[in-house]
Amino acid sequence: MEHPDCPLCRDVGGVWVASQPRFRVIRAEDADFPAFYRVVWTAHVAEFSDLNAQERAACMAAVLQVEQVLRRTLAPTKINLAALGNVVPHLHWHVIARFDWDSHFPNPVWGERRRAVDAGAAARLALPLEALDAQIRSAIESMSDA
Amino acid sequence: MEHPDCPLCRDVGGVWVASQPRFRVIRAEDADFPAFYRVVWTAHVAEFSDLNAQERAACMAAVLQVEQVLRRTLAPTKINLAALGNVVPHLHWHVIARFDWDSHFPNPVWGERRRAVDAGAAARLALPLEALDAQIRSAIESMSDA
Repeated sequence: MEHPDCPLCRDVGGVWVASQPRFRVIRAEDADFPAFYRVVWTAHVAEFSDLNAQERAACMAAVLQVEQVLRRTLAPTKINLAALGNVVPHLHWHVIARFDWDSHFPNPVWGERRRAVDAGAAARLALPLEALDAQIRSAIESMSDA
Repeated sequence: MEHPDCPLCRDVGGVWVASQPRFRVIRAEDADFPAFYRVVWTAHVAEFSDLNAQERAACMAAVLQVEQVLRRTLAPTKINLAALGNVVPHLHWHVIARFDWDSHFPNPVWGERRRAVDAGAAARLALPLEALDAQIRSAIESMSDA
């Protein structure tokens, strides 16, 4: 199941937030988008459709948990969800809280920068990242369908 | 439920491919990414977590159907899935077949162009877009869980 050359098989891939046997949640360390989390599937599969129905439900339930914590705690302008994997073809879902004041909004985080954010984006969030991580950890560890 | 100012409430939003009561599938007309489809939720909701559990399952089942047709017919290098909605906050899922020869690969379609594609990308697909649309229509119309 593990691929020795795959960075998401080999490494955590960011700040560890929470784990269930079939997936983990990590936080990307991105100064422009501090509330940027990833749900990383444990097994090395490339595509969402490589999962069976029960696995897909568990995966999206985890994405939903992260999205709901971000909405409840940060009241973002928009949530962005994406499973791309062009560079690292190991299934991972990006779950990103976007704000109308962020460096790229309304562009995708992969698009062109629109503005500078004075004093850094993390300082503008309603709670510190460690507190946000803790809320996500609690939500993920409480999942009955993981 | 409808918002008069929302382009996805007002218009189809692309080439119509298939409809179910709760969602439709359209094809974006993008010369760089010809196999670029969108699952557009019928009701005007902004976020995936605005759907209830049964609706989320139906929505992702539709995304899955499109992904599976694209994989089976085109054997893409990668499938890209995304629900962003920063510009049009009406729930829609992008389902995009990506190829290692496409204009932006491995960048996201919203990132920087990497190369020119001679003769156009659509001509390099294994089947004409109308045939691809028809296969997706058939898959969506056959859904028992829509």
